[in-house]
Amino acid sequence: MPYDKKLNQFQIAQTNKYNVFRCIVREGPINRAAIAKRVDLSIPTVMAIVDDLFEKKVIRSIGKGEFGVGKQPEILAVDPDRFFYIGVDIGRSALRIVVNNLAGAETVSMKEPTGDPFPEKEFISHVKKLMLRFVKKLKIDPERILGAGFAMPGLIGKGTGKVIVAPDFGWKDIPLQDWLQAGVPYPVLVKNSTQALAVNESAVFGADEIHTTLCVNLGYGIGAAIITGEEVYEGTGGISGELGHCVVDRDGPLCKCGNSGCLEALSSGEAIARQAQTIIAHHARSKIAELCRGNAAGINAKMVFDAAESGDGPALKIVNSAAENIGIGLSMAVNILDPDRVLLCGGLMRSGPWFLDLIKASMEEHLTAKTDRGLVLQAGAMDEYSTAKGAARVLMNSLWSRRALPV
Amino acid sequence: MPYDKKLNQFQIAQTNKYNVFRCIVREGPINRAAIAKRVDLSIPTVMAIVDDLFEKKVIRSIGKGEFGVGKQPEILAVDPDRFFYIGVDIGRSALRIVVNNLAGAETVSMKEPTGDPFPEKEFISHVKKLMLRFVKKLKIDPERILGAGFAMPGLIGKGTGKVIVAPDFGWKDIPLQDWLQAGVPYPVLVKNSTQALAVNESAVFGADEIHTTLCVNLGYGIGAAIITGEEVYEGTGGISGELGHCVVDRDGPLCKCGNSGCLEALSSGEAIARQAQTIIAHHARSKIAELCRGNAAGINAKMVFDAAESGDGPALKIVNSAAENIGIGLSMAVNILDPDRVLLCGGLMRSGPWFLDLIKASMEEHLTAKTDRGLVLQAGAMDEYSTAKGAARVLMNSLWSRRALPV
Repeated sequence: MPYDKKLNQFQIAQTNKYNVFRCIVREGPINRAAIAKRVDLSIPTVMAIVDDLFEKKVIRSIGKGEFGVGKQPEILAVDPDRFFYIGVDIGRSALRIVVNNLAGAETVSMKEPTGDPFPEKEFISHVKKLMLRFVKKLKIDPERILGAGFAMPGLIGKGTGKVIVAPDFGWKDIPLQDWLQAGVPYPVLVKNSTQALAVNESAVFGADEIHTTLCVNLGYGIGAAIITGEEVYEGTGGISGELGHCVVDRDGPLCKCGNSGCLEALSSGEAIARQAQTIIAHHARSKIAELCRGNAAGINAKMVFDAAESGDGPALKIVNSAAENIGIGLSMAVNILDPDRVLLCGGLMRSGPWFLDLIKASMEEHLTAKTDRGLVLQAGAMDEYSTAKGAARVLMNSLWSRRALPV
Repeated sequence: MPYDKKLNQFQIAQTNKYNVFRCIVREGPINRAAIAKRVDLSIPTVMAIVDDLFEKKVIRSIGKGEFGVGKQPEILAVDPDRFFYIGVDIGRSALRIVVNNLAGAETVSMKEPTGDPFPEKEFISHVKKLMLRFVKKLKIDPERILGAGFAMPGLIGKGTGKVIVAPDFGWKDIPLQDWLQAGVPYPVLVKNSTQALAVNESAVFGADEIHTTLCVNLGYGIGAAIITGEEVYEGTGGISGELGHCVVDRDGPLCKCGNSGCLEALSSGEAIARQAQTIIAHHARSKIAELCRGNAAGINAKMVFDAAESGDGPALKIVNSAAENIGIGLSMAVNILDPDRVLLCGGLMRSGPWFLDLIKASMEEHLTAKTDRGLVLQAGAMDEYSTAKGAARVLMNSLWSRRALPV
């Protein structure tokens, strides 16, 4: 943008109002004088805005403070029953929904198995009905809902919410956001699942002082998202963060994407299970055979991690190699991005801190510039509703930045 | 930043003044009405600001326009002799200096061999004297100089301009910016060379519609810089873009950084020359032996490219392998960043378009999501003063954004 945005009086007034309202949402309960200090406005300006917010019934008084002697200031908070917003995680194994109120204290959630995602239009209609039914059950007036954010795995078109391709679902070119929006009275937004997860994880760990967070989802597949400040860095087409398809071993196995030696083909939950199946098929002595009761097709990554934890040689070999490859992949991303925090999330991280330690050792070995980067590598918060909560956050961030709240 | 910046009347006036002045700098010669339209201000506001700029002697009238009949509007332009700014490229083989005026039309330049960079303080003092002498020779009043940007290869501390480590110079922990600033009456700024180069290349190719540019410097070493909009994405510590130290072949040769199989150890100008030396030492039949007249130690990358261009088998093998590795490295960066443009610069690109084609083929083969990304891969502008010009641009960008111009 070559020129700075010019602000007129209306825009300045809007900025002031949003700053006061956001201050009550984020930092409330809070009194007028504290708001004025926090958002750098005069007390009379804050008083006028607060009067307006009272009139619009979006805030309420929750009594007087107890600060020393003298007249006590009135404490303001968001009315918890006034506004709600929704997050939906369209996962391959489960659909998860969370409903938040603007006061932020409570989150109600539900989940159910995803089932067959075909035909796409019918499935999407089912997801929508599930959400609308859940909201109805909660007895929330649809007029009080600010919007719904949806998280979908796969390549999602930037700005359009279209599914370009979703390999886990077998979908291609689906106008997901448009189909979800049809018949829903509040705004709907679709975001890539890993990006939604990253927004939530980044917020949970505190984003205020953080420049760049790389959030990596180590699960059945491997994906990543980059957060700068509180925003997702989407890239040009919204398909950044494809860490799973960085080549870490050019002589490695074929990947679903058509290349060889991608990180995902080597170290995802699926790859780990496949490697164990091969071992068992060759009758290697391993605790994995015991855990899967001889049924090689039923092996999953958890069994391999459990066997490794008990000291099983073949399982340890698989897990060590996965950690080494993940560390190499992370070293590439860190070399390129120089983030201050790397958060590792997803099913593979449930295995415990020893897996994180193995990954860390490999990453540090393969990083250049062994100067003190102040880089923090840690496990994510690992709440099963993190992605749904992230989708809800993405929606709210969009409403705040577009100034699209009814205040 | 949780709250939007509040602007007071003074800040609004400053924004307006900077927008008008910048419009004259970027788009002049231009008349008042056109400025008003371009920066979205009323004509009286623009007229008042223009009067002020005239009084400060930073703009001048260059006559009347010739638009149809009637009163002709006065055409305004920056006074070309009023402000100058400097860019210095501290390269390992040459020091290059450019001096620009704000009108942007002319650039004066000089260069001289770098020589021995020790002791550091003496060398830095020499660089500074060289700059001051050049400015004196140009008969520019130091009061008219807005500042000087310096480009230095190596890890440069963000905000401090300290050299953390500069392997090509053998430097460590040198307060370069502070030492350069001492005794210089205008502001001095130090930036990493590849980042400075990238700022210039990105601007030359037009940054207006571009989201993210990855600029890769393929020379004696390999570095990269990320530009989002017109700004360098520096990362947390200012050490992003270390593409040269991404591992592309884990069984590859040892790198200076201590790891094995880094892109730089495989495909930099230095690595290409080294591979050719090994071949010649083993008495392989190759045109390279002819080009270096049997002196293996004197082989450089250019000889290898020249031999390859003439169809020499061993040289072709080296160059093909370098292009393949560079393509793999680029595929990683593109997978992670999803840029809209990749610019390849540096000495290796002088070899011609066939090398670019080889790199492109490898990158596309190793990219995931073979959907149409709209990604453009192209050679940079390849002006030997690009890095110095970039350093000058970085300095000016900083002055504009800090509102540190004397207007």
